[in-house]
Amino acid sequence: MLSDPRKAPKGSSFILKASDLQLRFCTNETQATREKFVAKLQRLGFDISVPEVFSPAPAATAVLKERGLRPHLLVYDGVLPEFDSVDKTNPNCVVIGDAAENFSYENLNEAFRVLIGLEKPVLFSLGKGRYYKETDGLKLDVGAYMKALEYACDLEAEVIGKPSTVFFQSVLNDMGLQPHEVMMIGDDLVNDVGGAQHCGMKGVQVRTGKYRPSDERHPTVTADGTVDNLAQAVNMILSQRGH
Amino acid sequence: MLSDPRKAPKGSSFILKASDLQLRFCTNETQATREKFVAKLQRLGFDISVPEVFSPAPAATAVLKERGLRPHLLVYDGVLPEFDSVDKTNPNCVVIGDAAENFSYENLNEAFRVLIGLEKPVLFSLGKGRYYKETDGLKLDVGAYMKALEYACDLEAEVIGKPSTVFFQSVLNDMGLQPHEVMMIGDDLVNDVGGAQHCGMKGVQVRTGKYRPSDERHPTVTADGTVDNLAQAVNMILSQRGH
Repeated sequence: MLSDPRKAPKGSSFILKASDLQLRFCTNETQATREKFVAKLQRLGFDISVPEVFSPAPAATAVLKERGLRPHLLVYDGVLPEFDSVDKTNPNCVVIGDAAENFSYENLNEAFRVLIGLEKPVLFSLGKGRYYKETDGLKLDVGAYMKALEYACDLEAEVIGKPSTVFFQSVLNDMGLQPHEVMMIGDDLVNDVGGAQHCGMKGVQVRTGKYRPSDERHPTVTADGTVDNLAQAVNMILSQRGH
Repeated sequence: MLSDPRKAPKGSSFILKASDLQLRFCTNETQATREKFVAKLQRLGFDISVPEVFSPAPAATAVLKERGLRPHLLVYDGVLPEFDSVDKTNPNCVVIGDAAENFSYENLNEAFRVLIGLEKPVLFSLGKGRYYKETDGLKLDVGAYMKALEYACDLEAEVIGKPSTVFFQSVLNDMGLQPHEVMMIGDDLVNDVGGAQHCGMKGVQVRTGKYRPSDERHPTVTADGTVDNLAQAVNMILSQRGH
């Protein structure tokens, strides 16, 4: 299992693909559909297809249908098509993603009013990131807005996406494998490594992207291995299998 | 000590004024200066003057000056004059109030960037209300945005205003009285009654405004008395003094 592959050397996933190992990509991307996400990676030369990609929006769609919930959506316009097949009339829950400019005062009040008007308010949050960096500076991520609505409505949101166990389990189900048979490789210690370990998988951190040296003395999460790049992680997996 | 007097019968405060009791008004109003707030009440017929009114913005101004802090402000335009005397160059803290429409995506990101860029981020919140009602519906209050910034920056805000002890203490200092000599009368069980009790005062709730019948079986706050209106509370105080 790999986190968002954009920062990884392309060769590494080719090696994995050439082996008989199953490969899935788990991303917390909530600003685009899987189709757009994959198309972008394909243009960059990655060998990747839509069914291999797991992101929060389609996972949320599955949960909504399973529980007969009709969402009021506060998400980025680009990810709306993932919710096309969901009944959104007369909402009985709220789903928030990283909505960026859609996190306006008016839209936040509207999402709040839907929640507070429900007999049993249910809030889903597509991830719980604190903030992220864009070319024009740092931006508050969905987790901050989740906390605002949680406080206002006195409830706890259900997080869909890494590091949620439900999210990782849905990927394991798709692979038809048990947690101990699968290794997660990612750059985010808490969301990738910790989340996978909590689910019973091994978690290996790569020293790229979100990696910080302080991760190697983190108080609660210890990776099952730390490698400089994805190629090293692939070698580790293959050597552990006796190849 | 009285909470926002707008819902109280005017006669009651006249009775209090005619006695030798000291009277102060404590409000969490953060959308107007005290001058505008008092002018409005005077037009409605209330006998009230600016030095009798305590609200979060001037209390914050005092704290900022005392600690040599220069705020980045995310507040309602109408309350800005309260901060006229404060140095706001090169901010080393953030102050948020109920900014209403000023709680835009861009302004929230800007306040966040100031905080996260500080070596020791300090966030002041003028109150911590969850939400309030306006003619066009419910609105998220400052507490929700406080929680968003707290989570994003991994810090705890300092709340200025009711129910903060620092806030009530500043009013007691102004009166030159000890807590046991003062009674707080208000309609908000947690912010008025609980806050005052936490500070050592007696707290009486009036069954008006924010009062809910469930307040009388609240798990953590029990009022020292519950009355139907301010006149009853005034009678209670005067009779307890033997008048």
